[in-house]
Amino acid sequence: MTQTRPVFYVSDGTGITAETIGHSLLTQFADTRFTTDRISFVDTAEKAREAANRIREAGEAAGARPIVVNSCVDNELYRILAESGGLMLDIFAPFIEPLERELGEQRSLRVGQAHGMVNFEAYHRRINAMNYALTHDDGMIMDFEDAEIILVGVSRAGKTPTCVYLALHYGIRAANYPLTEEDLEADRLPAKLRSHRHKLFGLTIDPIRLHQIRQERRPNSRYSQLDTCKREVAQAEHIFLNEKLTTLSTTHTSIEEIASKVLTTLGIHREMF
Amino acid sequence: MTQTRPVFYVSDGTGITAETIGHSLLTQFADTRFTTDRISFVDTAEKAREAANRIREAGEAAGARPIVVNSCVDNELYRILAESGGLMLDIFAPFIEPLERELGEQRSLRVGQAHGMVNFEAYHRRINAMNYALTHDDGMIMDFEDAEIILVGVSRAGKTPTCVYLALHYGIRAANYPLTEEDLEADRLPAKLRSHRHKLFGLTIDPIRLHQIRQERRPNSRYSQLDTCKREVAQAEHIFLNEKLTTLSTTHTSIEEIASKVLTTLGIHREMF
Repeated sequence: MTQTRPVFYVSDGTGITAETIGHSLLTQFADTRFTTDRISFVDTAEKAREAANRIREAGEAAGARPIVVNSCVDNELYRILAESGGLMLDIFAPFIEPLERELGEQRSLRVGQAHGMVNFEAYHRRINAMNYALTHDDGMIMDFEDAEIILVGVSRAGKTPTCVYLALHYGIRAANYPLTEEDLEADRLPAKLRSHRHKLFGLTIDPIRLHQIRQERRPNSRYSQLDTCKREVAQAEHIFLNEKLTTLSTTHTSIEEIASKVLTTLGIHREMF
Repeated sequence: MTQTRPVFYVSDGTGITAETIGHSLLTQFADTRFTTDRISFVDTAEKAREAANRIREAGEAAGARPIVVNSCVDNELYRILAESGGLMLDIFAPFIEPLERELGEQRSLRVGQAHGMVNFEAYHRRINAMNYALTHDDGMIMDFEDAEIILVGVSRAGKTPTCVYLALHYGIRAANYPLTEEDLEADRLPAKLRSHRHKLFGLTIDPIRLHQIRQERRPNSRYSQLDTCKREVAQAEHIFLNEKLTTLSTTHTSIEEIASKVLTTLGIHREMF
């Protein structure tokens, strides 16, 4: 019988940091089945007691000791959570002492700052980038002067989610340009794009995967036919090669990986939101 | 003189986990200035040597020992990176041994899995949710049957970024509905929304902040006038109160915080992408 192990991400803020590292840890244990839950904004003793009760009960129900991935920085809250009987993994604790020693500075107990609105200006840049991505999606606006990145590829190659991700997490103005039938036939990029060569990055995709994705969108259309997908991808890749664009296949690549590779290739570094 | 301390997020994958926890740690040290850089996809000894050189040089240039927030799981890569002389913070190491003991399982060294494309089905759900958010933005499509969450509020209250975030990171189909002049005058939600009461969440905002945001968008319009903003916000809040909607002010709240609170309020739990 496979036991299911309850995991709780507990935080005095959103819990995103705890869940991010917790998830990364769990992926390294393939034989165990986990059920995960997040308890956010635990910033009072009472909320910590409620959380501890919930954790204890989940452990009793599952017949397995819960795992608590904790990012509450307050020691008293930690103590209360530990009364749940769960295995406490405190994601900051191991690093605080070496950092204090190295930096010659005491950590300050600022609760839940990592994903809060710390800096209005940066936040504003993020929202503006987001609006930019949405209004410059799908070649709707063909003015690329303000773009920092322009993703080029056939329809459904993964451009839009990547642009939105770059805007949301890096505050980057990312536009995307879907290659049209005319571009593909002409076997070259439109002039409007060629003047922004240093911002361009090509996305490609396996034609069979593209066919599956397009089928869901417009079943049994010319657009989604495997033949159309094969031809378009071949033509697009030929253009990328001619224009010497760095290109990435999105077939087995997540949005995060695409975004990371685009940033590395174009030499852009921004702090992540 | 304020020293600037170089920080490197080094990973065999995207580096998102390393940067997320590293950033959270740095926010706890307010007196130090940091410059941060991410080195992703370090999955060979050669790339690790290149990274170590870059780290060492940055330390020499800054005249301060670099901090290396490392998520490479391979011991050999770790050893090479440590030769940079930086302070090594290995974000997984402290938790592996307690987890192995608790789970009775050895960790497997799966490189860079956390933000890769592990599960095509889940990934597909994410992309579909994203398309849903973009096509159900701004009340463009008034069919809310498939929505899991519907954010309601006046224009520019923060609905769109939150919907996109919920789609990207939780694969949730989030629609948004901007209250129209007619809704505000009628002092009630449209019938199409009222039948989905359990999915509704109200977003509000300080009228002065709203005025600033709208001014950037359409300067000196009736839409952006402070009086218009005050009236619309008051009317919207009145509707939320009448309809007993849970409401959140986005004025000092980040996208992550809004998303967390919406999920907690509506009792939705999804694993985070």
